[in-house]
Amino acid sequence: MERITARYYIETPYDLEKAAAVLAGEQSSGTFVAVPGETEELKQRFAARVESITHLETVTEPAIPGAVSAKGQYHRASIEVSWSIENFGYNLPTMVSTLQGNLYEITQFTGLKLMDLEVPASFADHFKGPRFGIEGCRKLTGVEGRPLIGTIIKPSIGMTPQQTAELVKTLAEAGIDFIKDDELLSSSANSPFEERVDAVMRVVNDHADKTGKKVMYAFNVSDEIDSMLRRYDKVVAAGGTCAMVSLNSVGLAGAKKVCDQGQLAIHGHRNGWGMLNRHPLLGIEFPAYQKLWRLAGVDQIHVNGIQNKFWESDDSVVRSIEACLKPMLGGYSVLPVVSSGQWGGQAPETYRRTQTTDLLYMAGGGIMAHPNGPTGGVVALRQAWEAAVKGLSVEEAAAEYPEFAKSVEKFGSK
Amino acid sequence: MERITARYYIETPYDLEKAAAVLAGEQSSGTFVAVPGETEELKQRFAARVESITHLETVTEPAIPGAVSAKGQYHRASIEVSWSIENFGYNLPTMVSTLQGNLYEITQFTGLKLMDLEVPASFADHFKGPRFGIEGCRKLTGVEGRPLIGTIIKPSIGMTPQQTAELVKTLAEAGIDFIKDDELLSSSANSPFEERVDAVMRVVNDHADKTGKKVMYAFNVSDEIDSMLRRYDKVVAAGGTCAMVSLNSVGLAGAKKVCDQGQLAIHGHRNGWGMLNRHPLLGIEFPAYQKLWRLAGVDQIHVNGIQNKFWESDDSVVRSIEACLKPMLGGYSVLPVVSSGQWGGQAPETYRRTQTTDLLYMAGGGIMAHPNGPTGGVVALRQAWEAAVKGLSVEEAAAEYPEFAKSVEKFGSK
Repeated sequence: MERITARYYIETPYDLEKAAAVLAGEQSSGTFVAVPGETEELKQRFAARVESITHLETVTEPAIPGAVSAKGQYHRASIEVSWSIENFGYNLPTMVSTLQGNLYEITQFTGLKLMDLEVPASFADHFKGPRFGIEGCRKLTGVEGRPLIGTIIKPSIGMTPQQTAELVKTLAEAGIDFIKDDELLSSSANSPFEERVDAVMRVVNDHADKTGKKVMYAFNVSDEIDSMLRRYDKVVAAGGTCAMVSLNSVGLAGAKKVCDQGQLAIHGHRNGWGMLNRHPLLGIEFPAYQKLWRLAGVDQIHVNGIQNKFWESDDSVVRSIEACLKPMLGGYSVLPVVSSGQWGGQAPETYRRTQTTDLLYMAGGGIMAHPNGPTGGVVALRQAWEAAVKGLSVEEAAAEYPEFAKSVEKFGSK
Repeated sequence: MERITARYYIETPYDLEKAAAVLAGEQSSGTFVAVPGETEELKQRFAARVESITHLETVTEPAIPGAVSAKGQYHRASIEVSWSIENFGYNLPTMVSTLQGNLYEITQFTGLKLMDLEVPASFADHFKGPRFGIEGCRKLTGVEGRPLIGTIIKPSIGMTPQQTAELVKTLAEAGIDFIKDDELLSSSANSPFEERVDAVMRVVNDHADKTGKKVMYAFNVSDEIDSMLRRYDKVVAAGGTCAMVSLNSVGLAGAKKVCDQGQLAIHGHRNGWGMLNRHPLLGIEFPAYQKLWRLAGVDQIHVNGIQNKFWESDDSVVRSIEACLKPMLGGYSVLPVVSSGQWGGQAPETYRRTQTTDLLYMAGGGIMAHPNGPTGGVVALRQAWEAAVKGLSVEEAAAEYPEFAKSVEKFGSK
């Protein structure tokens, strides 16, 4: 029978075998005393199985509160645990409850993080996955051979639909590929969702009629289910190509329902991610996280950026991009969204470390505050990526490309 | 204009005022450089406002990775931040993205936890909240003046619908008020959801016909939206009174859609909660968390239990029960579900510290593995609560109640 496997990074003051067995027990048939009806046959069929335990190191201080070691020793290990597909079938929320449920409460652990997960081939028959993915998003925007260049409407909140549309016009004329609402803006007092869609799509459609290039605008549909579906239909009716969902805030069932509509590329925003990941020994790592959303059907997912304004290390960002670009069950293509403090100066390093242009590269201030205006900002970003693919350094690129040189002058010291 | 207020526990190596201002900026109009269009008027209307900062202590080691202090000083404080209702209206996912979004990524913080939140009175016009709550769940089960006594079907996974129904029959005859699926079981290979509903409800309805008492069975409907609604309808059609949702795994939009159906009491399981809460300076505290789910309409929510088998302290459990029992906007009644390692011995302490019987008190092994069988287990739990309300200690209760005395013998050393 097919099995789902999860890999955890754990810390425990107990014997590693015993601690792993507690996790497997809790997540398949756990209670604190043996109960009638728990037969050997049932255990064989439905029990979680500890597949491997690799001791990594032993430390003297626990990472998070839990059981206290009498010897002052906390053992860290990588463990693999598997469950039969018979336990929950093809049900993503119940898979999450199994792989990421009560196990975080187990006192025997002083650290527990879900690092990765593997699903069996039959998942491909049950989950359609991203309808657009990298190729689909390239087709919708007409961009080949370089990253899609995108920006976020700023200020995040407070602009009217008309002001937003004017900015979209400027950006479209500047040659932008992608624009998104901020995750803080869905429908605000001075920018009702439907009015914003009408105002923005008028500009986007006009520009497409004139130039043949349709800017992809990700409207933030995040809300309760019925509202999200109404908003989705509104975007489709207005000729839009993309909707944005705040994945953690909406949740897995809601995000999948939106993805299942299949007419718009879904931009998956991971705001709230820091809560799930920032501690090194608690929560979930991105390689596991992004697989859940690919199964749900998200076409684009945020991965932060090199030299970002947040706390995350470049190594972690690189691992996230690599995770997205690795096919899942031979497909489930998802476009990594590089964002946070980006202005083009990070392009050479991003390319050097990932060797890919299959990215949606997002800059906010890096485009809008360019000395030559947004047009200069978009040109500078394209130049940055052209230079990056040629293998030029930031300094070499600045010598060759004047608009990029101005970005370096303005943002280079940040 | 009405405002939403959030209280955070923060840690930062920076000046507290500066760090709080970064948070407020990031969560209303943040980018790393000033951009055109960001007028003073817009800022006034849509900017988040730091309402108060209370310094608590200064420590020498950061709680989580982030900015490093040159002086080796990390300041901890309680801060309050508010947003105008104009920013996102009545949209729970976007409220979550605002209160719990990218702020966890901010490098200036070496600790950040959402402690509580306050919503304005107008929320009551837009969110119906729990349809049943404490009074509704009491009416559905016919239980007054004491906690509802409940149990979980164990083993968690692997029993057939027929075996489950037989166990339900035993428990119903033993006088149980409430039974639930384990969160690991939705539809398994040997217990398809619909077959389980049919088998269990036949027993529950028969028992109700004979005795007038309908046991509340919480069927775990957790899945994607369409499946959850189909399962919900199945439970309604079979005469059931309750559905269970794994809140974190399904997510806010999905859970609200289920609650909105309004025909079943919704049992909110918080599995995965440890990931959001276990670190003292990362994530969210229960007083804030439970408010989100009450707004979504959850009727019952898990709070762990005194002397539980997990890592959580009794103090934290007591605070969670108190949070649930505090009316929100004058209502939004939610029944706290006490669970994890409970067998009745914790009843006196639970009552002493909370002074309430408005609880769903759940025991798994504590009922099923009672020396006199499940009947003895249910009787013992009712006795434990009778004794608790009388103010008896565990020892005094054991002297007065023979079934409870047997529980003490079997489970008392655990």
